[in-house]
Amino acid sequence: MLLKLLYTRGSLHNQPDGAGVAFSIKNRLDTVHLTSVKQVQLDDVVVPAASIRLDLGGGDVRLATALGADEPLNLPVGQVLTFLLATPPLTAGMHRLRVQFSTDAFGELSVEVEDAIASQDGRVRIPRAEGDDYAAPAIQARQQFAEDFTGQKYKHLKQYSFDPHDLQGNCESFVGVAQVPVGLAGPLLVDGEHAQGEFLIPLATTEGTLVASYNRGMQALNLCGGVKCTVIGDAMQRAPVFVFDDARGARDFGRWVADSLPQIRPEAESTSRVAKLQYIDTYLSNKFAYLRFNFSTGDAAGQNMVGRATFAACSWILEHYPGAPIRHFYLESNFATDKKASQINVMRTRGKRVVAEATVKRDILQQRLRVTPEQLAYHGQVSNVGAFLSGANNNGAHSANGITALFIATGQDVANVSESSAGVLYSEVTPEGDLYLNITIPSLIVATYGGGTGLATQNECLRMLGCVGPGTVNKFAEIVAGVVLAGELSLGAAISSSDWVSSHEQYGRNR
Amino acid sequence: MLLKLLYTRGSLHNQPDGAGVAFSIKNRLDTVHLTSVKQVQLDDVVVPAASIRLDLGGGDVRLATALGADEPLNLPVGQVLTFLLATPPLTAGMHRLRVQFSTDAFGELSVEVEDAIASQDGRVRIPRAEGDDYAAPAIQARQQFAEDFTGQKYKHLKQYSFDPHDLQGNCESFVGVAQVPVGLAGPLLVDGEHAQGEFLIPLATTEGTLVASYNRGMQALNLCGGVKCTVIGDAMQRAPVFVFDDARGARDFGRWVADSLPQIRPEAESTSRVAKLQYIDTYLSNKFAYLRFNFSTGDAAGQNMVGRATFAACSWILEHYPGAPIRHFYLESNFATDKKASQINVMRTRGKRVVAEATVKRDILQQRLRVTPEQLAYHGQVSNVGAFLSGANNNGAHSANGITALFIATGQDVANVSESSAGVLYSEVTPEGDLYLNITIPSLIVATYGGGTGLATQNECLRMLGCVGPGTVNKFAEIVAGVVLAGELSLGAAISSSDWVSSHEQYGRNR
Amino acid sequence: MLLKLLYTRGSLHNQPDGAGVAFSIKNRLDTVHLTSVKQVQLDDVVVPAASIRLDLGGGDVRLATALGADEPLNLPVGQVLTFLLATPPLTAGMHRLRVQFSTDAFGELSVEVEDAIASQDGRVRIPRAEGDDYAAPAIQARQQFAEDFTGQKYKHLKQYSFDPHDLQGNCESFVGVAQVPVGLAGPLLVDGEHAQGEFLIPLATTEGTLVASYNRGMQALNLCGGVKCTVIGDAMQRAPVFVFDDARGARDFGRWVADSLPQIRPEAESTSRVAKLQYIDTYLSNKFAYLRFNFSTGDAAGQNMVGRATFAACSWILEHYPGAPIRHFYLESNFATDKKASQINVMRTRGKRVVAEATVKRDILQQRLRVTPEQLAYHGQVSNVGAFLSGANNNGAHSANGITALFIATGQDVANVSESSAGVLYSEVTPEGDLYLNITIPSLIVATYGGGTGLATQNECLRMLGCVGPGTVNKFAEIVAGVVLAGELSLGAAISSSDWVSSHEQYGRNR
Amino acid sequence: MLLKLLYTRGSLHNQPDGAGVAFSIKNRLDTVHLTSVKQVQLDDVVVPAASIRLDLGGGDVRLATALGADEPLNLPVGQVLTFLLATPPLTAGMHRLRVQFSTDAFGELSVEVEDAIASQDGRVRIPRAEGDDYAAPAIQARQQFAEDFTGQKYKHLKQYSFDPHDLQGNCESFVGVAQVPVGLAGPLLVDGEHAQGEFLIPLATTEGTLVASYNRGMQALNLCGGVKCTVIGDAMQRAPVFVFDDARGARDFGRWVADSLPQIRPEAESTSRVAKLQYIDTYLSNKFAYLRFNFSTGDAAGQNMVGRATFAACSWILEHYPGAPIRHFYLESNFATDKKASQINVMRTRGKRVVAEATVKRDILQQRLRVTPEQLAYHGQVSNVGAFLSGANNNGAHSANGITALFIATGQDVANVSESSAGVLYSEVTPEGDLYLNITIPSLIVATYGGGTGLATQNECLRMLGCVGPGTVNKFAEIVAGVVLAGELSLGAAISSSDWVSSHEQYGRNR
Repeated sequence: MLLKLLYTRGSLHNQPDGAGVAFSIKNRLDTVHLTSVKQVQLDDVVVPAASIRLDLGGGDVRLATALGADEPLNLPVGQVLTFLLATPPLTAGMHRLRVQFSTDAFGELSVEVEDAIASQDGRVRIPRAEGDDYAAPAIQARQQFAEDFTGQKYKHLKQYSFDPHDLQGNCESFVGVAQVPVGLAGPLLVDGEHAQGEFLIPLATTEGTLVASYNRGMQALNLCGGVKCTVIGDAMQRAPVFVFDDARGARDFGRWVADSLPQIRPEAESTSRVAKLQYIDTYLSNKFAYLRFNFSTGDAAGQNMVGRATFAACSWILEHYPGAPIRHFYLESNFATDKKASQINVMRTRGKRVVAEATVKRDILQQRLRVTPEQLAYHGQVSNVGAFLSGANNNGAHSANGITALFIATGQDVANVSESSAGVLYSEVTPEGDLYLNITIPSLIVATYGGGTGLATQNECLRMLGCVGPGTVNKFAEIVAGVVLAGELSLGAAISSSDWVSSHEQYGRNR
Repeated sequence: MLLKLLYTRGSLHNQPDGAGVAFSIKNRLDTVHLTSVKQVQLDDVVVPAASIRLDLGGGDVRLATALGADEPLNLPVGQVLTFLLATPPLTAGMHRLRVQFSTDAFGELSVEVEDAIASQDGRVRIPRAEGDDYAAPAIQARQQFAEDFTGQKYKHLKQYSFDPHDLQGNCESFVGVAQVPVGLAGPLLVDGEHAQGEFLIPLATTEGTLVASYNRGMQALNLCGGVKCTVIGDAMQRAPVFVFDDARGARDFGRWVADSLPQIRPEAESTSRVAKLQYIDTYLSNKFAYLRFNFSTGDAAGQNMVGRATFAACSWILEHYPGAPIRHFYLESNFATDKKASQINVMRTRGKRVVAEATVKRDILQQRLRVTPEQLAYHGQVSNVGAFLSGANNNGAHSANGITALFIATGQDVANVSESSAGVLYSEVTPEGDLYLNITIPSLIVATYGGGTGLATQNECLRMLGCVGPGTVNKFAEIVAGVVLAGELSLGAAISSSDWVSSHEQYGRNR
Repeated sequence: MLLKLLYTRGSLHNQPDGAGVAFSIKNRLDTVHLTSVKQVQLDDVVVPAASIRLDLGGGDVRLATALGADEPLNLPVGQVLTFLLATPPLTAGMHRLRVQFSTDAFGELSVEVEDAIASQDGRVRIPRAEGDDYAAPAIQARQQFAEDFTGQKYKHLKQYSFDPHDLQGNCESFVGVAQVPVGLAGPLLVDGEHAQGEFLIPLATTEGTLVASYNRGMQALNLCGGVKCTVIGDAMQRAPVFVFDDARGARDFGRWVADSLPQIRPEAESTSRVAKLQYIDTYLSNKFAYLRFNFSTGDAAGQNMVGRATFAACSWILEHYPGAPIRHFYLESNFATDKKASQINVMRTRGKRVVAEATVKRDILQQRLRVTPEQLAYHGQVSNVGAFLSGANNNGAHSANGITALFIATGQDVANVSESSAGVLYSEVTPEGDLYLNITIPSLIVATYGGGTGLATQNECLRMLGCVGPGTVNKFAEIVAGVVLAGELSLGAAISSSDWVSSHEQYGRNR
Repeated sequence: MLLKLLYTRGSLHNQPDGAGVAFSIKNRLDTVHLTSVKQVQLDDVVVPAASIRLDLGGGDVRLATALGADEPLNLPVGQVLTFLLATPPLTAGMHRLRVQFSTDAFGELSVEVEDAIASQDGRVRIPRAEGDDYAAPAIQARQQFAEDFTGQKYKHLKQYSFDPHDLQGNCESFVGVAQVPVGLAGPLLVDGEHAQGEFLIPLATTEGTLVASYNRGMQALNLCGGVKCTVIGDAMQRAPVFVFDDARGARDFGRWVADSLPQIRPEAESTSRVAKLQYIDTYLSNKFAYLRFNFSTGDAAGQNMVGRATFAACSWILEHYPGAPIRHFYLESNFATDKKASQINVMRTRGKRVVAEATVKRDILQQRLRVTPEQLAYHGQVSNVGAFLSGANNNGAHSANGITALFIATGQDVANVSESSAGVLYSEVTPEGDLYLNITIPSLIVATYGGGTGLATQNECLRMLGCVGPGTVNKFAEIVAGVVLAGELSLGAAISSSDWVSSHEQYGRNR
């Protein structure tokens, strides 16, 4: 329950001109009615209710003494409440803070935390506007600062065609744009469950031959009836950890969590209309219980949504767990595993698990890509051993290339290339002598809503793919997978056809 | 030797208007003097010298019969030689091709390959200009095509501030730009061997809080004297594989390669002024010999440079290896491991191996980041176990975030986030009670020359960091590492300070 | 259903003296009543019912024509039915076989398989008795053969103290015993949920210092109140794979399996009183559906039990799956992962997941093991980084040593050291300055029933531990874990105390 | 230099009956001549030379005052020197000890260490004879103790046929033997570089069907001309770590080590006639320099030999490194990686890297193992994906089974199954329609000298294989690999032939 009124870490500060000390709490989860604030204790000094004012923002400031059971202070979810204390300013450094108050439903409560008053330092700072930090003056001040600081002029960086206010929630301290060239490939013929037909592919890249190579693969796939794409898994994670005194504590907790899923699920899902808790994997080691929460997240990639939902679930858990004391709790434990490659992501999905597959006709392969099915399959076997020995997270050629170019173009979180670069390539020569080629991308993290997907060029590229609007994320995932298969085919053919160098050499050597 | 005259795969074609058949070879490595072309055989048909003309380009076309020992055709390195055959057009599909000719130094030679005549198909194609494909009409044709094909209008994509001709070698089929917002963080105080002083950090991202969070970490590092950065390793790889009849063949080959390094090195280094072959790691398995060539590549990331150098070395090896027959050779084997995460890259470096380290003062940590050294170190231990169990390539928090934002801003090959996302985070509480924090990025792939580093906004961002011009790549690597440490500190503090939720809860629960 | 009547592969043979051809089927799962055998087809030759006799063993042979709806042939589970065909002998090599018959409940059925007649070869063979192969003459014949074959005499190998008939089901072609020395360590004070008190530890090893080193660790643990041991997980696996035409086929199959668990469970559990199906993990990749069946298996290690149970479950699945055709099915897919180390075993348990933990008092550590808590913990951190970089499945010192010695002594399947060698070591210096040490063994495969646990010396060693009889397997697992922690403490102390060499050296160097 | 006179940790003790205090040092590396012992300081108490006697063992005790430049005390390598101090007994707990003395070649030296006097505890102890602990009375005392302690009788454990004195250096606290049944398989036809001909294979196991299954594979291999076996790598490691103040310190140290290899090699090799230092791999991370010393070790497995050699090399390094201070040094760092599975062992060899390969004829495969080459190869591809996803260290079936049974039979260090269980299986269907099968065991740790190889039954089993005497270890490694391939063939065939169940089912389902 206490977690509903969460102290805002770092909010403790001296007000200007000796006007006292202030700090804030925020209501996170449920409406609360405050019926009294008894006192606040700062280190060893008690600040009585009479010296406390409560600021709800927007000019709504009340005396703490004005509250009562029939005059409660209503705090809806998300409400920030700032305490203004008529006391002398605090010194820089850590301070101990204790607040006592009453609520209607939860009775008497007290919170104790430590927080610090930051010391001032005289360093140069990047300009930041107190008011509208995305207005032209703020941006220009930063541009000027950068030019002054570095003694350089920036011409291209300043050129952008959109309203910077659109960037709120996407980029702080905005100063300009990186212009990343976009090349067109395709159209690619996709036979998905969500994507059907031909798609023109925008690839944002600075790497020469990338667009041409993917395009070559797409032409070959098109001639064989296109690429079949399927989303076979979907889960976004956050993985908190709970620390106990011993292994038994962790194990018993794990069992309780499994039994309590019906109670945990609504708590997790209370924070969003979209996030749905699928299941929790519990991993035990030493005295730790790692919980890996798996959610579906609609058209969003969902990392933030899932973080909030997991936090809410954990708040409930922390409050209700009746067993051995939980010694520590962290919202993340490297079991998610966000922004990094991992075996668990390969094995158990992160984001979308997508497959692209095609049967490439022998004659198309020979005519277009100058290689036989047997050559490509043979190289696949040899490089499988290579991937196994080198401990790679991908036994294919270069799926990250196409993924990255699509991610930049369409406003994905490009750092997720870390996870999305994993791949499982599989090939067979069919009884008819054609090449069956299949790539599984086990942890492709994509969105058609949220993040950078609504920005100017990014949204245009999503529109080019018909992936704007509700329910388009699986379509987008299928297209990405299809593009990746085209790239595997193209580069795989290029590498495996160099095989002729060797047989060729054997003719020549005798002469 | 034959590898010097390399058949251009896919060059076989029918000339327009029944003017015969043509194909090309290219001289790859050393000047060759052609003293005669005896005949070309196409499937079962012999084309005599009298029906062959040799086209050197630029209008220099000769009769094959005009060649002789005192009238040789000189082929410098890089020269393409096209054979024009006065024969009827070939049908679509594969054809067998055999060329016999003489050279001064290498005597009589013959080459046999298969190549295909592509069949025509009537599909829609993205417009491409025969002449200048980066001129405005070509680009506009593609933009129009995209709008027609998709029924959408693209306004922002078309907005760019540079001359598209600058994109040759960077992006085919150019149609516009992705505008990725850039935020400023820092300045960050770096104590490197190459980077010294304060640097303003341009981060291209669409992910909210990223810039702010890195900035928070930088402020804390600055207050502790900045971040010490060191490049501790440097190698770029290409990993060919040679297939033998049995394990003994592969093993003996490996020994010969080790003994022949003095001969192999100059061959590898003949293809570039910059690439220097450091050493070759040989990995044996089954009947395969995987060679992992390790180069230094100056200010370039070097993947292409290293590919060419390794190919030259392998050409020499294929020609000179006196042992058991090499049954197959491929220039890549998934041992490089390019564009993917792998244990070998973590262990044995890919690109730069860079370390950033700092001792963060206890009071700064508490005042600025609201966490004690012990809390941060403890969470580090718990998440180490998490990373170990989940099989992650990084036991830290999110180094890929800062790396990706810097990569997009500065024109790096962003797909290399796959490798660059690996990290080894280590922390200690010092005897003085401060926090020693260290991150090693074992496979950071960066460049200040080549790739996208010369493009408009990309180059400006490199200039902002003072990383333009010869000898700046290690400076850039150090800055990247410093930024990454700031991000680890900032997010690590945020996660580990949430620990208070638990102790807090224990106060509250009694009431 | 057909799977209930399973053709016995390899049973096809020519009977002696031209007495025709024979083959067998076996009823695997449920009683069946055969009402007629219509015909058997051998390659292109039809063998009519009149030429077929049915042999149930024990002299019960009937004419196929004698069967009828009111004269059925009753086949209980496990019954072998041999078909005797009055036809000329078959040539060596593969033959096609088709049987048509009727049953009461399942109607008309036909089976088609290929089987081979083995060719004879004249090689030397190890003697094998047709009758009792564990009687003295059979064993002596093999001993004599070995001595003749190798020209050596074997004195010690022939010395054993038990009745070889006890080895049926444990060792074919028995010739003698390896005498592995057993040393005693302990007693070790264990505070488990199943093991309580002091245990004398029999370690079978030929490695010097092993017993002494473990003993040293045990003494130190005893002085600190012993070792707390807990089983935190328990699952034995078999992992079949189903191959489909495409990814959608595999995905839809996975969903159906999840929905069909209530039907699958009883099928799996029909084959044993002990094996209980806990859950099935489904892993999808490419066009494959890997199912990882997780069972509890009582006091047995359970690999065989689980294989039978999974086969029964898969038989039901193969028969009842209504979706896309299953193109291939294999009972194992390297997802189990039996007899090998793997990330999945570390992550998701194989056999028992056991933890041993203790708080070692500072003064005991210093007096007995000559090291401080800080030294041991520091070395742990440094070797954690080592394990992370080297890709080890264990960040501790040598848990395999104690496990192997206990496994040999107590008749475990020693090849399971592959899985059982994994470990997660964790240490903390407590606020009191003591060392908290914890090891998790995530895939410890142990039994107190079945396998070699009932053999002569093996059973005695289990008796020494009080681990004979129903419900003792968790007790045994706890003891193993406790022993392992003793070894980690002992070797960890030895390695980390060598640290003094360095400080020591620094004194000396000045002189 | 000081390292040559190494203080024996734990040697500090009170002599019985108040006869003073004693401790020992040992000369590790080179003959030293002691010319004086000046004094010993115990905590704050100085013990003058007059109160010190020097005990060389064997009754040779001298007064410290009797030494002089012309009356030196000669300490050959391995000599233990015990200091007897006429002082009152020390209390239990840690004490500080300082010794000052002179030598001829190294001048004045002083050593300072801390060591503890162990407190007594009244626990039950396993009996140990002061004199001959391998004589019958000592062993019987332990047997009696075990029977008394556990209330059980042990009949079989006590039965052994050899002289227990042979166990010195192999097993402390000996109490009896585990009798592990040995079955015979083969003969197996091996075409190695060291093993040539037919070998009878002793397999020590308690797992039913193991011997029969391996035997089945051997018969099939024999019919195809046997198995070709090759040792392709050989290296045994110890991996110390050096800790510095920062990354630069570690990096510079790594460079110095590389440059100093000519000086380091003789130091490492001074400790054994057999161990030869091949090369040192340096792995840098954070502020750590991990050195992985690679040795060849003759017929021994070599872990101990290599430990001593590496320690000697590190002693020299610690003494001579002129750079930044080394803050910590540990002889092991989890980079070896002893007794555990790891990617580094798979990649870079530990022990022997051995390959076994064979081309199995189609008809033999069908007749003997009831499977086609295509079926076996197909299953191989499917289980490759399984191994890749599950993060296994072996993509084959069960190589650990054969390895473990051979290890127990022949006195190998069975705990090395951890490393030896790794495997890389590769198969191809040849153009002739046969099956090429190849397994690489990258880290097979074997010996024919040292460890348990000289014990009674163990040596007999090695003699059965003709692997006793100098230069036999590679022969043994080849045989092990050949056995492993037989097992892969046999089990692989069994699993992949179960495929028929599926096609079979499809016939039946229509009825």
